[in-house]
Amino acid sequence: MTESELKLEHQVIFYSESIFEEKKFTELEDCLLYKELQGNLWINIESNKHVEIIESLSKKFRLHPLTIEDIFSVDQRPKLDDYEDQIFIVIKMLSYDEATNTIETEQLSLILGKNYLVSIQESDKEGDVFNSIREKLRGSKGKIRKMGADYLLYSLIDMVVDNYFNIIEKIGEKVEEIESNLITDPTSQTLRRLYALKRELVYLRKSVWPLREVIAKLERLDSDLVQDATVLYIKDVYDHTVQVIETIESYRELLAGLLDIYLSSISNRLNSVMKVLTIISTIFMPLSFVVGLYGMNFEYIPELKWQYGYYMVIGICCLISLGMLYFFRKRRWI
Amino acid sequence: MTESELKLEHQVIFYSESIFEEKKFTELEDCLLYKELQGNLWINIESNKHVEIIESLSKKFRLHPLTIEDIFSVDQRPKLDDYEDQIFIVIKMLSYDEATNTIETEQLSLILGKNYLVSIQESDKEGDVFNSIREKLRGSKGKIRKMGADYLLYSLIDMVVDNYFNIIEKIGEKVEEIESNLITDPTSQTLRRLYALKRELVYLRKSVWPLREVIAKLERLDSDLVQDATVLYIKDVYDHTVQVIETIESYRELLAGLLDIYLSSISNRLNSVMKVLTIISTIFMPLSFVVGLYGMNFEYIPELKWQYGYYMVIGICCLISLGMLYFFRKRRWI
Amino acid sequence: MTESELKLEHQVIFYSESIFEEKKFTELEDCLLYKELQGNLWINIESNKHVEIIESLSKKFRLHPLTIEDIFSVDQRPKLDDYEDQIFIVIKMLSYDEATNTIETEQLSLILGKNYLVSIQESDKEGDVFNSIREKLRGSKGKIRKMGADYLLYSLIDMVVDNYFNIIEKIGEKVEEIESNLITDPTSQTLRRLYALKRELVYLRKSVWPLREVIAKLERLDSDLVQDATVLYIKDVYDHTVQVIETIESYRELLAGLLDIYLSSISNRLNSVMKVLTIISTIFMPLSFVVGLYGMNFEYIPELKWQYGYYMVIGICCLISLGMLYFFRKRRWI
Amino acid sequence: MTESELKLEHQVIFYSESIFEEKKFTELEDCLLYKELQGNLWINIESNKHVEIIESLSKKFRLHPLTIEDIFSVDQRPKLDDYEDQIFIVIKMLSYDEATNTIETEQLSLILGKNYLVSIQESDKEGDVFNSIREKLRGSKGKIRKMGADYLLYSLIDMVVDNYFNIIEKIGEKVEEIESNLITDPTSQTLRRLYALKRELVYLRKSVWPLREVIAKLERLDSDLVQDATVLYIKDVYDHTVQVIETIESYRELLAGLLDIYLSSISNRLNSVMKVLTIISTIFMPLSFVVGLYGMNFEYIPELKWQYGYYMVIGICCLISLGMLYFFRKRRWI
Amino acid sequence: MTESELKLEHQVIFYSESIFEEKKFTELEDCLLYKELQGNLWINIESNKHVEIIESLSKKFRLHPLTIEDIFSVDQRPKLDDYEDQIFIVIKMLSYDEATNTIETEQLSLILGKNYLVSIQESDKEGDVFNSIREKLRGSKGKIRKMGADYLLYSLIDMVVDNYFNIIEKIGEKVEEIESNLITDPTSQTLRRLYALKRELVYLRKSVWPLREVIAKLERLDSDLVQDATVLYIKDVYDHTVQVIETIESYRELLAGLLDIYLSSISNRLNSVMKVLTIISTIFMPLSFVVGLYGMNFEYIPELKWQYGYYMVIGICCLISLGMLYFFRKRRWI
Repeated sequence: MTESELKLEHQVIFYSESIFEEKKFTELEDCLLYKELQGNLWINIESNKHVEIIESLSKKFRLHPLTIEDIFSVDQRPKLDDYEDQIFIVIKMLSYDEATNTIETEQLSLILGKNYLVSIQESDKEGDVFNSIREKLRGSKGKIRKMGADYLLYSLIDMVVDNYFNIIEKIGEKVEEIESNLITDPTSQTLRRLYALKRELVYLRKSVWPLREVIAKLERLDSDLVQDATVLYIKDVYDHTVQVIETIESYRELLAGLLDIYLSSISNRLNSVMKVLTIISTIFMPLSFVVGLYGMNFEYIPELKWQYGYYMVIGICCLISLGMLYFFRKRRWI
Repeated sequence: MTESELKLEHQVIFYSESIFEEKKFTELEDCLLYKELQGNLWINIESNKHVEIIESLSKKFRLHPLTIEDIFSVDQRPKLDDYEDQIFIVIKMLSYDEATNTIETEQLSLILGKNYLVSIQESDKEGDVFNSIREKLRGSKGKIRKMGADYLLYSLIDMVVDNYFNIIEKIGEKVEEIESNLITDPTSQTLRRLYALKRELVYLRKSVWPLREVIAKLERLDSDLVQDATVLYIKDVYDHTVQVIETIESYRELLAGLLDIYLSSISNRLNSVMKVLTIISTIFMPLSFVVGLYGMNFEYIPELKWQYGYYMVIGICCLISLGMLYFFRKRRWI
Repeated sequence: MTESELKLEHQVIFYSESIFEEKKFTELEDCLLYKELQGNLWINIESNKHVEIIESLSKKFRLHPLTIEDIFSVDQRPKLDDYEDQIFIVIKMLSYDEATNTIETEQLSLILGKNYLVSIQESDKEGDVFNSIREKLRGSKGKIRKMGADYLLYSLIDMVVDNYFNIIEKIGEKVEEIESNLITDPTSQTLRRLYALKRELVYLRKSVWPLREVIAKLERLDSDLVQDATVLYIKDVYDHTVQVIETIESYRELLAGLLDIYLSSISNRLNSVMKVLTIISTIFMPLSFVVGLYGMNFEYIPELKWQYGYYMVIGICCLISLGMLYFFRKRRWI
Repeated sequence: MTESELKLEHQVIFYSESIFEEKKFTELEDCLLYKELQGNLWINIESNKHVEIIESLSKKFRLHPLTIEDIFSVDQRPKLDDYEDQIFIVIKMLSYDEATNTIETEQLSLILGKNYLVSIQESDKEGDVFNSIREKLRGSKGKIRKMGADYLLYSLIDMVVDNYFNIIEKIGEKVEEIESNLITDPTSQTLRRLYALKRELVYLRKSVWPLREVIAKLERLDSDLVQDATVLYIKDVYDHTVQVIETIESYRELLAGLLDIYLSSISNRLNSVMKVLTIISTIFMPLSFVVGLYGMNFEYIPELKWQYGYYMVIGICCLISLGMLYFFRKRRWI
Repeated sequence: MTESELKLEHQVIFYSESIFEEKKFTELEDCLLYKELQGNLWINIESNKHVEIIESLSKKFRLHPLTIEDIFSVDQRPKLDDYEDQIFIVIKMLSYDEATNTIETEQLSLILGKNYLVSIQESDKEGDVFNSIREKLRGSKGKIRKMGADYLLYSLIDMVVDNYFNIIEKIGEKVEEIESNLITDPTSQTLRRLYALKRELVYLRKSVWPLREVIAKLERLDSDLVQDATVLYIKDVYDHTVQVIETIESYRELLAGLLDIYLSSISNRLNSVMKVLTIISTIFMPLSFVVGLYGMNFEYIPELKWQYGYYMVIGICCLISLGMLYFFRKRRWI
């Protein structure tokens, strides 16, 4: 993808309790004038692949070299760096792709400064994830317009964490599906789904644990950039993150329990197969011996001369069969 | 359920060492006058679905927006928020439903302020859970009338935790049931019950661990709203919570041990099935060979001419059988 | 059991370096006069079911309501409450009942005050557990007479912890027994004993972990009631508790290892059963086919006419058997 | 290898923002004069087997005896020792050997002093690992020339940690390989590869955990030798180390999941083998009985006289077979 | 063993930078005069069973009663007690007994005071474990003569920890042995060796964990008895202890992995046994049916009259066999 193809329109929103302005831009210069005005500035950059715009951002907002590096590298672990006049946060937005049944990740870089917030998304395909927040900003009522850029930061993080709950719920549904599946009809396919789910949980946990640290750090941060009133809200997101983590851990345990059921259901099936084999063998082997006995060609076998010898053999066979069946019934095999 | 149908009667109790008043109300206004008087006020709201009453509560008691949000959302993780002039606590009341054999959850929101406590239950079906505490309040003796709203808060939490012990006990009974069941007659049904129990423990733990944090926080809280004399009682509830947690952990371990017994009893059964098969096969295969041998149609087989050939074969068969049985006895298979 | 039947004789001991008095009593009044004298007072109450005596104790020694509650409830978790002028400790005395092969628990409540110690046992059946300490007190030499009531407290706890070592040792013996048993002759009985042992360890751990906390708290306690010289001794008991815990953890690991051996020995046995079956089948199935072949009634089977056909068949059977045996030897099955 | 054979050329680099000098040396004396000049000195010694040079280093730079010991011992655990005027760091450089499919370790000792850094590698075979850093130093732009020896230390550690990511990636590829392998064709070879991978992870973790401690210590170190500006960069490496650790833990979990799949796929295969055996036996054992029945030599068996007796037997055999097949189909075995 | 038989010769060494005296003694009096002189005194007592000498030691060096108790009890957990003017340390010396393949333990008690160190060994059989340190003391060069009794203490502990590495190495060799053994020829013997190794690791860990605490405590101890210069060396031993612990943990994990391989190799063997059985049965059961069919005595079986009937049956048998073999080849069983 060449850079010219990436000429997407990024958004800038400038707001205070009484003012609200919103426009799209392709050159960063277009929105720098707001920086001097009284109010809060939110610059949202749609893709971290727009090298030019991020470099001019770096200059105008005096970003630390490490910040720039982190914005470009997409395998970043969620983190918070505190540069006194700026707070830099990297988190992961997760979304569940129904088509491929996989969790998709997008990195979100956030830079909070005095009266401004810059958000940089990773991919440009889904430009409307923040729409609900933009809507709230457009409406003149609501808390968000009254509070500063730190509350906006909280709102974005809150939205991301809320999304985690959706994914958790999806996984919860799948766990239940496997659960009922295991009871009715366990196949080797079930095991693969168990493993796939385990894999997703491992992945999810890798995103959420550091996010929890980030939010805890943000909460304890003794910075002018985050107001006391906002800290209460951050605590709330923190609680949500902990809840996500605890639910992940619960699912991990349940999966382990399901694996035990699966493995023991395999063993049970082996047992039932073996029982059928044993019953058949145990009944027919003695019978075969008996009929083989009277198939011998000895010249002198008295029974062969008896008129009812044949019926006697059939009678013996019936007796043996019934005896065996009684034996199995007693052992509770049938 | 429309709101008009929910016109339940909430309760308000106003008490001090010498005074006790109790009435039901449907409009919050009815009980606000007590707030100005000297004494303790307990407002119990039967259901968090009564939006109107909670909203007027929010205004009169100046609740934080997050508090309101938490009261309405029922999937809340147990938590404690300290707003200097108010302490907001969310905990889970658990009850064991004998009919469906499941643990039922009800959220309880508690707001402790200067001389008042507001408790908001989730569902309106069981209005009498706090009856024992109301009884104590009605009786003029007892400690509860002498102490403040913080002691009332303690009493409510203590009652909730005491209920946890009931559930723990139920689970303990089930563990023992499975234990004796495994010895007498393990079926694949047993495994499902093991898993169901594990699931309940996972669920229970998810409720109790954060409760422990909440109580620990309450104990350490340096707030005017909680008196020193009450802290000793809170410590006591804390100890109980720890005891609940430790018992849960013990049961988890015992369940793991029971699973091992179950799995190995499946293997043992497979072994015993295989032994029967092997014994039968090992005895009858050589016998079938012998009788097959003398069933051949060769013109010249000397034994066939012998008068006692048939008895010899029967003798050989007996010898083989006895030899095999001796071999199995030596291997301790039978 | 009515209270009148419980008219047991409790003991009171009053001692200092030079004085030693000892008597039995049934009314608490009998021993209150010592409280005013200079010296150490030890009141031992044989059973917490003597409601009257504990209630008068409560009044005379001004016990906290929670303390009384804890003394009566026998499912208490070991704990230490510090009420400035009194320290209240609950611990568990364990003893191994050889007859039933189970661990028995008795709750011991201890109240340490200025110059006095009150100990309250749970059951009244074993009145002589503290005899060794009483002996030491009677003897005028020894450290115990020179030091205060806090040293007496230490001595009691030390005795309780020493008893834990006995139980640990019992369990150690059982672990070794199972170990050697698994090698010589593993049965499904072995598994039940493994589980019973695991259960005991879970139970034991539940008693010892909180005891460790109690002693650690006692050691760090900045109270006038515990002298510096005694703290060194408390540290020593603490070390012993840690040793008990570590030994428990070791045994848990060893048990897990033994379970692995057990499970794999079941699998090994299945393997050996299967091998016998396979060897027998693999040898006799081809033989049966051969003799069956010449048992056919076709009019034209040239071999049947041969004089040595029968011996040829026997030769073929021998060859097949030897070939099979060679094949199994090569596979190291026999 | 005699010491004379080891006459490798070590490198010394002296730089400041404006100056850059670089030369090779075999005698330490050659580079000591730089020590007095204003600028940063980097001495890189290619092998810790050059005893002479390290001993003269020890004298000139007044190294602590323990430092010398640690430089020579190659099984050192990563560590940081702070000797006020010097910081001594030992870390492990890991590299993946494609040929033998193993992880190779090289110890790197770093001594940071006022304006100088001494790096001592373990083996002399790969002299060019630091080339990228040397290149950056040679180029007059870039941050590295502007900052002090502590930034150089950071750059070396950063390079080492970056290498860990390569190894992690290699392991990740192998995990995926095994994953797809397990689905298509699990063999006992797969298990060995799982174990080999587990072994590598255990090994890797043993190197990375202490490295994390080292970097954390370096970050918190209150030393004049590390400037505040550099601490931000060290934090960044720290985050990377944590990311490496978390990825290792994820892989460990996935490996455990893969092992479960492997074990259950073995069980599944056993099941399918047993099913074939059971189906064959269950069909043919009754058939053999039937044909054996009419192979008996009784004089009076009426069916033998029937003209269509033979076809009747064939019909019975077909019926039995079809019945069995229907039975298996119902049990979902075929 | 009577005490008179234990008349071993203990050693006393008195040294400073310029002085070195060494002699053997049986009465403690012989070495007390050194205590008043300027220099360091090292008293080594060969066995803690010499009650007399330890009691006179107790008096002359004013040991705490608990110290005496700890010296005599040999099941002591490694510990450090700080009595201001004395530091008392108990550690475990481990040695690997090649003959019995077990780890042997000897308790070492160390008392560090102002200018003196007393070391008390448990058994008297190996009097020469400290020889290397005595040699260093005899040589006038080396650090040990220049430094105080605290450095001597460090040297003894260092020697003990170095010995742990030997044992670790032994265990490492055994792990590798089992590893290669599992690949070539796993037997049930292997499992017992795995368990024995696990047992040793559990035992080793029980010794090393508390040792680590002891050294950490010694390092942080704010005592006049330990000089700052020595603390650096103690830190070094601490690092070694951590390394021992980490290696133990690694081996534990590898053992768990080996157990998985062992268990799955048992399952694999079962699979291969079952395959042989199934192949044989599946081939010969249909053949036996066919030949049984033509062994029936019906009067009218047209095929029996055919001249080539016999060859046809043999042909059919070949076809069935080849078909089965093709089926197994397709299933990759052979």
